[in-house]
Amino acid sequence: MSEAFAPVDVIIAKRDGRELSDAQIDWVVDAYTRGVVADEQMSALAMAILLNGMNEREIVRWTEAMIATGTRMDFSEFPAPSVDKHSTGGVGDKVTLPLVPIVAACGAIVPQLSGRGLGYFGGTLDKMESILGWRALLSNDEMKDVLHASGGVICAAGDGLAPADKKLYSLRDVTGTVEAIPLIASSIMSKKIAEGARGLVLDVKTGNGAFMSDLPRAQTLARTMVKIGNDAGVRTRALITAMDVPLGLAVGNAIEVTESLEVLAGGGPQDLVDLVLALAREMLDIAGLDADPEQAITSGRAMDHWNAMVSAQGGDPHASLPRAKHEHVVTAPTTGTLTTLQAYGVGVAAWRLGAGRARKEDAIAHGAGIWLHAKPGDHVAQGQPLMTLLADDEQRFEPALAELDGSYEVGGEPMDRLPLIIERLDENTT
Amino acid sequence: MSEAFAPVDVIIAKRDGRELSDAQIDWVVDAYTRGVVADEQMSALAMAILLNGMNEREIVRWTEAMIATGTRMDFSEFPAPSVDKHSTGGVGDKVTLPLVPIVAACGAIVPQLSGRGLGYFGGTLDKMESILGWRALLSNDEMKDVLHASGGVICAAGDGLAPADKKLYSLRDVTGTVEAIPLIASSIMSKKIAEGARGLVLDVKTGNGAFMSDLPRAQTLARTMVKIGNDAGVRTRALITAMDVPLGLAVGNAIEVTESLEVLAGGGPQDLVDLVLALAREMLDIAGLDADPEQAITSGRAMDHWNAMVSAQGGDPHASLPRAKHEHVVTAPTTGTLTTLQAYGVGVAAWRLGAGRARKEDAIAHGAGIWLHAKPGDHVAQGQPLMTLLADDEQRFEPALAELDGSYEVGGEPMDRLPLIIERLDENTT
Repeated sequence: MSEAFAPVDVIIAKRDGRELSDAQIDWVVDAYTRGVVADEQMSALAMAILLNGMNEREIVRWTEAMIATGTRMDFSEFPAPSVDKHSTGGVGDKVTLPLVPIVAACGAIVPQLSGRGLGYFGGTLDKMESILGWRALLSNDEMKDVLHASGGVICAAGDGLAPADKKLYSLRDVTGTVEAIPLIASSIMSKKIAEGARGLVLDVKTGNGAFMSDLPRAQTLARTMVKIGNDAGVRTRALITAMDVPLGLAVGNAIEVTESLEVLAGGGPQDLVDLVLALAREMLDIAGLDADPEQAITSGRAMDHWNAMVSAQGGDPHASLPRAKHEHVVTAPTTGTLTTLQAYGVGVAAWRLGAGRARKEDAIAHGAGIWLHAKPGDHVAQGQPLMTLLADDEQRFEPALAELDGSYEVGGEPMDRLPLIIERLDENTT
Repeated sequence: MSEAFAPVDVIIAKRDGRELSDAQIDWVVDAYTRGVVADEQMSALAMAILLNGMNEREIVRWTEAMIATGTRMDFSEFPAPSVDKHSTGGVGDKVTLPLVPIVAACGAIVPQLSGRGLGYFGGTLDKMESILGWRALLSNDEMKDVLHASGGVICAAGDGLAPADKKLYSLRDVTGTVEAIPLIASSIMSKKIAEGARGLVLDVKTGNGAFMSDLPRAQTLARTMVKIGNDAGVRTRALITAMDVPLGLAVGNAIEVTESLEVLAGGGPQDLVDLVLALAREMLDIAGLDADPEQAITSGRAMDHWNAMVSAQGGDPHASLPRAKHEHVVTAPTTGTLTTLQAYGVGVAAWRLGAGRARKEDAIAHGAGIWLHAKPGDHVAQGQPLMTLLADDEQRFEPALAELDGSYEVGGEPMDRLPLIIERLDENTT
């Protein structure tokens, strides 16, 4: 088969700061998926994109080209409106777990395709797999059966969705090209658009524990993704939210399920509840549903939907969750106000305890993690527990404590804090 | 074996505009040669180097690291001083052929390791292979035998010299990263320094037919290479020379050998003779030899050295050279002065006639090429031959003529011309 372009010409165009044409983008993404553009060519192009950028037209087209390499799901058989959520990831971010059954209980279809954790970011699938028997991998038919049973589903994205993204993501990971905003935005949005929901709410996190620690970069990413989604016919909004301190009090896997159940039962830490409700309201508004998510919790309907969803995926919602074999309590060194608690340090410490994986093939310890007992602004007495470290292997406490050193402080200068919800971008944002 | 660095960290350092340390450079070049740094990682790094640059320290170190991946030749067994020459390549650039025996006749050892042509640049080895029986590939012992017999040798560089460069050059060719001056300079100089001559003269070409068509880039490349060479203990100078019109009158392979023999016989086109003598004088001066290259020609000694060198490599210096099967004469469309003759158009036309190769594995037609009958400034009468196109396949004339269209003009505005020797850089240049 004769090819429309030579790979080097496309690379050189972007290297020299020129815009790529629609035809060049369509071809290079497809040809890379087919193996005609080699890894070493795509990585050079990715570096040129990272350093020279892409404009909105190029990013939208690149996203569409990645979607076109695979299949696109369709939920039009469901009478209810479908709506989806994506978070760029943070420490203690278990929002998906309570959010999906709450929004489903309000009448929407919530097909939530999720990922696993890598590095110190937790993964929703890893958290859900703390539940005995629960299966992440579903066929399309099984996924729809779960949606019929409970209105929501949390499962792994199949290989058929945007295979170009899967291949490109692995390449970027080893070539220093993860940080390109055009490639981050198109990677996230190609999967989310291919998932087929009619509405999408993005939770773009910023602060020391976020992938986009820098606010202007988070804003650029959010604006770019909102534009891509709406251009592709998916009603898309974004909240830019704080990831300077951990979200809620649990950082791990099984303990984050426990905290999610507290929210569904009407309790839970205030910051987590506030964020879940804010995201739920955006999702319901996009879906055109006039329903109150708080009422879905207090009525018990959200918990019913959770139980139905977990059961439909083979899980036992009433089984005991895994517990770590060992605990280590960190106490307040002095009496005073907890002034600092950095999300980054807590996240890395939980990862070192076994809650996360360093390489894709690593196993994780579902019971490992950190229970926080205080948040910044809380008054603590000397010797009072600040946090409980959980691990299956006692030797992990020392490296975790080393990571925590300097990440929390009692009685110092209060750390700079971000508001929980920093900015909201909707369909009218330009 | 544990590695000193992670590939991604080195890529990210250069991506983010930081200097690479000596240790990072030593490691990444060596690890790439060992296959520990993958092609897709090196291509991303090459793109980052192209876009963010390297300073002189980094370039010198990168060159040394490439030399260290292979062997280094040594000519200290010869009592005479050794001196080498390198050209960045141009249209009709057959300078090496007469230059080597001239400088050898003046008492130097001239170990000239050369390459093949790719694209519209001719390759010295391709030209020499027009000679019946002549062998480009010599063992180190054979090479020294030829030097003992004739003082000069023109042959292919062995695989043992800077293998990192060989691998990196192939990668750059397919990843749009050929044009990075730090990588061009280190590629050329790693091979030239590893060749072991004590002196080196660089012919850096600029103008429409040169790889560095832009004078400031040619100056930067020349200055960088002179610095690298002198830092490595090789006395290095550079001439920046014109490649706006073809050098001499022959553009091809066998016909360039014919023109080289004219020079050795005391004739030849003036521009070619002037450049050969200028480069010979620089080489002799670097070698500390007080000898007159013109006298080497007129005495017949240069031709004797040529004959000895060709014979020592299995060639028959008196055999007939290959002739093309077909000729096509281009005549002057009107009477007047030939005002334009672009090296680029002539070079590409000769390539289309079969004198060059499009891919490394292509065969070339040794008899193909273009004999020029006039140069800019010459008066021509309507119908007078301007050039003779030579090809083994008549179907090649049409695409060659299409390339020539617009590359020459009679009676128009005189083209901008460069002086033959634009600038000279020596050991004292900073």
